[in-house]
Amino acid sequence: MALAFDRDELTAYLAEVFPQVRDDFVIDALAEDHLTLRLRTSERHLRPGGTVSGPSMFALADCAVYAMVLARVGRQALAVTTGCSMDFMRKPEGGADMLGRCRLLKLGRTLAVGDVLLYSEGAEKPVARATMTYSIPPAGSAAARAG
Amino acid sequence: MALAFDRDELTAYLAEVFPQVRDDFVIDALAEDHLTLRLRTSERHLRPGGTVSGPSMFALADCAVYAMVLARVGRQALAVTTGCSMDFMRKPEGGADMLGRCRLLKLGRTLAVGDVLLYSEGAEKPVARATMTYSIPPAGSAAARAG
Amino acid sequence: MALAFDRDELTAYLAEVFPQVRDDFVIDALAEDHLTLRLRTSERHLRPGGTVSGPSMFALADCAVYAMVLARVGRQALAVTTGCSMDFMRKPEGGADMLGRCRLLKLGRTLAVGDVLLYSEGAEKPVARATMTYSIPPAGSAAARAG
Amino acid sequence: MALAFDRDELTAYLAEVFPQVRDDFVIDALAEDHLTLRLRTSERHLRPGGTVSGPSMFALADCAVYAMVLARVGRQALAVTTGCSMDFMRKPEGGADMLGRCRLLKLGRTLAVGDVLLYSEGAEKPVARATMTYSIPPAGSAAARAG
Repeated sequence: MALAFDRDELTAYLAEVFPQVRDDFVIDALAEDHLTLRLRTSERHLRPGGTVSGPSMFALADCAVYAMVLARVGRQALAVTTGCSMDFMRKPEGGADMLGRCRLLKLGRTLAVGDVLLYSEGAEKPVARATMTYSIPPAGSAAARAG
Repeated sequence: MALAFDRDELTAYLAEVFPQVRDDFVIDALAEDHLTLRLRTSERHLRPGGTVSGPSMFALADCAVYAMVLARVGRQALAVTTGCSMDFMRKPEGGADMLGRCRLLKLGRTLAVGDVLLYSEGAEKPVARATMTYSIPPAGSAAARAG
Repeated sequence: MALAFDRDELTAYLAEVFPQVRDDFVIDALAEDHLTLRLRTSERHLRPGGTVSGPSMFALADCAVYAMVLARVGRQALAVTTGCSMDFMRKPEGGADMLGRCRLLKLGRTLAVGDVLLYSEGAEKPVARATMTYSIPPAGSAAARAG
Repeated sequence: MALAFDRDELTAYLAEVFPQVRDDFVIDALAEDHLTLRLRTSERHLRPGGTVSGPSMFALADCAVYAMVLARVGRQALAVTTGCSMDFMRKPEGGADMLGRCRLLKLGRTLAVGDVLLYSEGAEKPVARATMTYSIPPAGSAAARAG
């Protein structure tokens, strides 16, 4: 299946629908079922001791799969996070950006699933893993309008 | 088993070890294996449309179980989040505080598990559920020193 | 909301749609949003050393939420497991039945969520916890026919 | 890090410690941090309609990560499943074997994490995904003896 956006169009569309994270995230790479999202780590993403906070890692994983789904379904549709599982495996490095490498595992009519490995840039082993599930409300439904 | 802190002591200890969230969270109630944590919802926790963001809900759940574990293990020990699962079930109300009602399910020597129901204050049905798992490094171990 | 079945009707309906587990499970209690399912532990549910196997605990949790959903949606609808998270917290006792205490957290038009605490009968603390999510295909849809 | 067993040795060791699944599973491939486990699908793994049951998929994922961990830690150590998350994405084919492709994400002193994609043999898209976490009790501890 083709992408509905290229990387520049997706960047612009995310900034439009999700303005509050525009400065935090950069789409590094986009392919048919892969996307790499960069968290530009700054002071507000850190915990004392200098590691990236759990909520910032959640936001990176969530936004990576969300962007991947939008890249495929385009402007018509909405996607609402319904589920998440994460495992935190190593300590992130506070001085480095964090990369979320997303793999789209399923894009159905009403349900999407993607998983993400999160890396401190330059490190070989993942800091965390996440799976995010999205509900895609039918266009025109109450949930879609409310989205 | 007894609590290592009462509510005021736990509030003070959290502010000490976790200063960056001091203004966001209030411990509403504390018992041997239950704790209610309040997210004082403000602009920075919201998404456009006025709903509480996913990362803010993650932070509420994580902090609720973390505080519950600290209330039991006291000053000696550390706790590091190792896993999380969440289900987002209803739309939160942006104008209301959010309450995380935590139940401690297991507190072992090295592993703790708690689950949390998240409510918009005043609403009857939960907005989300979460389970958080924590590793409790042995006092004096490298992980504990690094924590 | 009312139940579509009482306990005897639900027992009969489960035996009809799910005959292969008829001998394993008994509905101990049913209320509007709670259900207790008993696993009649026998040799084939055990691991060496006499503990109940992980797949048997998965089956108990899955079947408990499935039965709870059917009790509410009745004969018209189908439910397909889409997600699961479990935490295994204590060693189950092989000589005892296992009870799954399910709480229905959400029953939407297309999505249901329930969680389950699993106990060895007679023990006070839970052996495991689970959350199961179900997709409820619209009646007459391809997924429902295929279900 | 090196493997403690090759494929034949691991097959023999699994049959020794886990005899009840000897006829169900075959190790198709083993590398330093990957393992493919085959479920030889037979009548007892199926649901009416001919799809592979949820508990059988859970068992495949659990056994794949367990075998991967044993392949690395060898005879000294034990591993106890502590957590699991799964997403069921497509209908498995009842007539085909199922393959679990495991990737070891972390192997720490006390905690291991692996994820698994589950495929019906011959199909391109995964039926399900799973993440399993294991606790590795210190040799000689009570948990290890009880394991």
